[in-house]
Amino acid sequence: MATRTQRPTTVVIIGASGDLTRRKLIPALFHLGSKGRLPPGLRIIGYSRTDFSEDGFREYMREGARELGDLDAGQEEWDRFAGSIHYLRGDASSPPDVERLRDYLEEMDRGGPGSNRLFNLAIAPHLYEGVVRTLGGAGLAAGNGGWSRVIIEKPFGRDLRSAVELNRVVGGVFSEDQVYRIDHYLGKETVQNLMALRFANTIFEPLWNRNYVDNVQITVAEEVAVGDRGGYYDQSGVVRDMVQNHLLQLLAMVAMEPPSARHPESLRDKKVEVLRSIRPLAVRGAPGDAVRGQYRGYTGEKGVPADSPTATYAALRLFVDNWRWQGVPFYLRTGKALATKVSEVDIQFKAPPHVTFSLGAPEDLPSNILAVCIQPDEGAHLMVEAKVPDQGMQMRTVDLEFHYDSAFGGMSIPEAYERLLQDALEGDSRLFIRSDHIEEAWRLVDPLLRAWEDPNGTPMHVYEPGSWGPAAADHLLAQDGRRWVQACGCHS
Amino acid sequence: MATRTQRPTTVVIIGASGDLTRRKLIPALFHLGSKGRLPPGLRIIGYSRTDFSEDGFREYMREGARELGDLDAGQEEWDRFAGSIHYLRGDASSPPDVERLRDYLEEMDRGGPGSNRLFNLAIAPHLYEGVVRTLGGAGLAAGNGGWSRVIIEKPFGRDLRSAVELNRVVGGVFSEDQVYRIDHYLGKETVQNLMALRFANTIFEPLWNRNYVDNVQITVAEEVAVGDRGGYYDQSGVVRDMVQNHLLQLLAMVAMEPPSARHPESLRDKKVEVLRSIRPLAVRGAPGDAVRGQYRGYTGEKGVPADSPTATYAALRLFVDNWRWQGVPFYLRTGKALATKVSEVDIQFKAPPHVTFSLGAPEDLPSNILAVCIQPDEGAHLMVEAKVPDQGMQMRTVDLEFHYDSAFGGMSIPEAYERLLQDALEGDSRLFIRSDHIEEAWRLVDPLLRAWEDPNGTPMHVYEPGSWGPAAADHLLAQDGRRWVQACGCHS
Repeated sequence: MATRTQRPTTVVIIGASGDLTRRKLIPALFHLGSKGRLPPGLRIIGYSRTDFSEDGFREYMREGARELGDLDAGQEEWDRFAGSIHYLRGDASSPPDVERLRDYLEEMDRGGPGSNRLFNLAIAPHLYEGVVRTLGGAGLAAGNGGWSRVIIEKPFGRDLRSAVELNRVVGGVFSEDQVYRIDHYLGKETVQNLMALRFANTIFEPLWNRNYVDNVQITVAEEVAVGDRGGYYDQSGVVRDMVQNHLLQLLAMVAMEPPSARHPESLRDKKVEVLRSIRPLAVRGAPGDAVRGQYRGYTGEKGVPADSPTATYAALRLFVDNWRWQGVPFYLRTGKALATKVSEVDIQFKAPPHVTFSLGAPEDLPSNILAVCIQPDEGAHLMVEAKVPDQGMQMRTVDLEFHYDSAFGGMSIPEAYERLLQDALEGDSRLFIRSDHIEEAWRLVDPLLRAWEDPNGTPMHVYEPGSWGPAAADHLLAQDGRRWVQACGCHS
Repeated sequence: MATRTQRPTTVVIIGASGDLTRRKLIPALFHLGSKGRLPPGLRIIGYSRTDFSEDGFREYMREGARELGDLDAGQEEWDRFAGSIHYLRGDASSPPDVERLRDYLEEMDRGGPGSNRLFNLAIAPHLYEGVVRTLGGAGLAAGNGGWSRVIIEKPFGRDLRSAVELNRVVGGVFSEDQVYRIDHYLGKETVQNLMALRFANTIFEPLWNRNYVDNVQITVAEEVAVGDRGGYYDQSGVVRDMVQNHLLQLLAMVAMEPPSARHPESLRDKKVEVLRSIRPLAVRGAPGDAVRGQYRGYTGEKGVPADSPTATYAALRLFVDNWRWQGVPFYLRTGKALATKVSEVDIQFKAPPHVTFSLGAPEDLPSNILAVCIQPDEGAHLMVEAKVPDQGMQMRTVDLEFHYDSAFGGMSIPEAYERLLQDALEGDSRLFIRSDHIEEAWRLVDPLLRAWEDPNGTPMHVYEPGSWGPAAADHLLAQDGRRWVQACGCHS
């Protein structure tokens, strides 16, 4: 009898005609293949309602790869890879169609052991429940002797109620260890580097608590506006688009207790514990913990209603009520049409307790900042005070910095999907979102969603495109005697 | 009646014909003058046995300034400055001569308040006691209404006994707060920056103890050999030349408790406390705490006896027996004719307690290092582990660094003497060596001096010029499972 590692593996992309497939999934699989990281003999099945011939589908994928520049150095490699791509037309919501898919997969396995199967749902979120049920109905969750796994893209639900329901449906068909929910932020190199900095170094962890940290700031700023995605965006808004997933992921990784390498669920346990420890947001009334904004001109964007109450900017103040973080504010901000594109985590430490040197003025020394730069200029900055030459004991902030591009010169940073697809193929679920995490994150933002959908809810602050968001977001910190910092992207 | 700040100030350089005066003291005073940091109307009196006219002495000083490049941008400035320089011929060991000096100074003060007087002993150390007594005998320690201070250069004694005796003689003439003992290392910008890093930042002090620090290394390496100073050097050797003063100063500043800014003696108190806490060295027997070396060819240098037992290299292991440092070794090394010129302090932290990520091999993660670079490439490096892109959870050491030359571009780092002379003129003695510090430092190295002068003492390890010293120095650390690190000077 064949062992699992000897089985062939098949990736089934459901919704294969969409942009995600040609821009992310196929390129990631291509790169994994070039690096020799795919299971030998991997088959890729594109599946969608579009009428492609097999050659037509391969050509469509090839064009996508060419647009990304992937073919510049590897036309021959592409040709080899493309030989593993197949296509089957069908409607994944239709039981007879999915039974045909099952028969097609079994036909491919004929004469050998049943293959491992990774189903990648590259479809619109409102189709998830139906497709999962149909896959289950056709027996595809049970598999054919090998394993069967399903990748589900965000958004996973659009509020707590719908996420719980989706988890219930998915959980009725797949067991939790078969389900790989993607938040592609977790596949980013620099998000993983946040873990590396915390736990592969001894110097940060002793400082990583309420005794030494004054506040934590997480900024995910986009320079672009909604562009031609206004219709889609207006249905979600900033909380669903960024806060519930990416920002809370970053917060969880910054705030979590150190996981144990011994238990594979430890990392995800620790993140969920953080979310469970977050104090409910004070979303109404002033000053409160939340500021919403909408960039000037948003309601004139294509597909956006003229009276849209959708927030394109959010600033939040969160508290993690546990032993480590009691009293330390976590300030989160994210939005569209902001001054620059930057994602960073800033740990701002407390100021020194005593000014050891006689200074000209009795002003406070600046506090140290550790900035972990997620994108686009991946790296880290540590702001420390140093003595200004020839000036008595005057201090100035200097920037101890490293940048991925110079520190790892010549090594390109892979797309998040590469790591995530490889992990899913290898059965490593640590960088995927567990069902309880999803629900805790929605539980946290649900009051915000409700308050911000209420026409008589909290004020909407209009901000100028190209700014750093509404002044109210500055007041959110100013009421605590603090201000936003932004350290990434600077080369000294 | 004139207040002290309205009094004129006079600097009397005793031994003014020597190199120290024209290469260090006068240039430092010139630069202080250019920066407007000298007391108004400051007079400088050159005093020595050499027969200079006043113009001749000024010209001799001007040549020194020109050799240093100080005149490139400031011939006019020099001329203005030179007008404050006077010269008096005399023997500072001769009571009648020094009475003439006293009369000369009083003559200068005639018609105004008595001036403040700073006597700078730029003379051979064996003359200190006689000159100090003579100054006292002429009433110059008491002053003429203003203050009277004396600067004494290192070496201050050549062992514990002679240092105690010198302190006794000096203390019989001047009170401790009149005495400014120079270790020019304390005037270096980057040595002061060591204090700044520790106490103007909050992120280092919590780590600065036995819980997080594995070991501390202090390297003061010279690339040059003894050159034409062999005769002088052979009388002192590496312990008197470097260890007793510079290296123990650095150690004291690294290891001391935080001083209080409220009490001016607090900094010096804290340093002396460190020296008092150091465990006596095990100087004999193997492995022991001390390794001595002599570079191959030293005994052939001009002025060095062919059978000289003088060490040109020392490596030591010290323990500071207090609450903060118990069990943490401090490794010190210094020598001549080494691979490069570098002075640095390396704080090596412990390795992480738990490898959070599944690594390919169960190898230990490297530990973090904070390197404070004293010279020549002034700055700091912090070695941290970061995730290698696209390589699972593999780590690599990256260098978070800052360099004075780029961080403070355009600001030249002044010579140590500038700061020290300014402090002495202002009565700030914090960067000078107190008598008890001198004695504690000698007490510590005295057993080493005795053992190394004993022909049947510890072995002398010959090392190759241009190397990092004898292999025995590596064994000193290897016996503890450690090795020397060298982090400064690298630009990533």
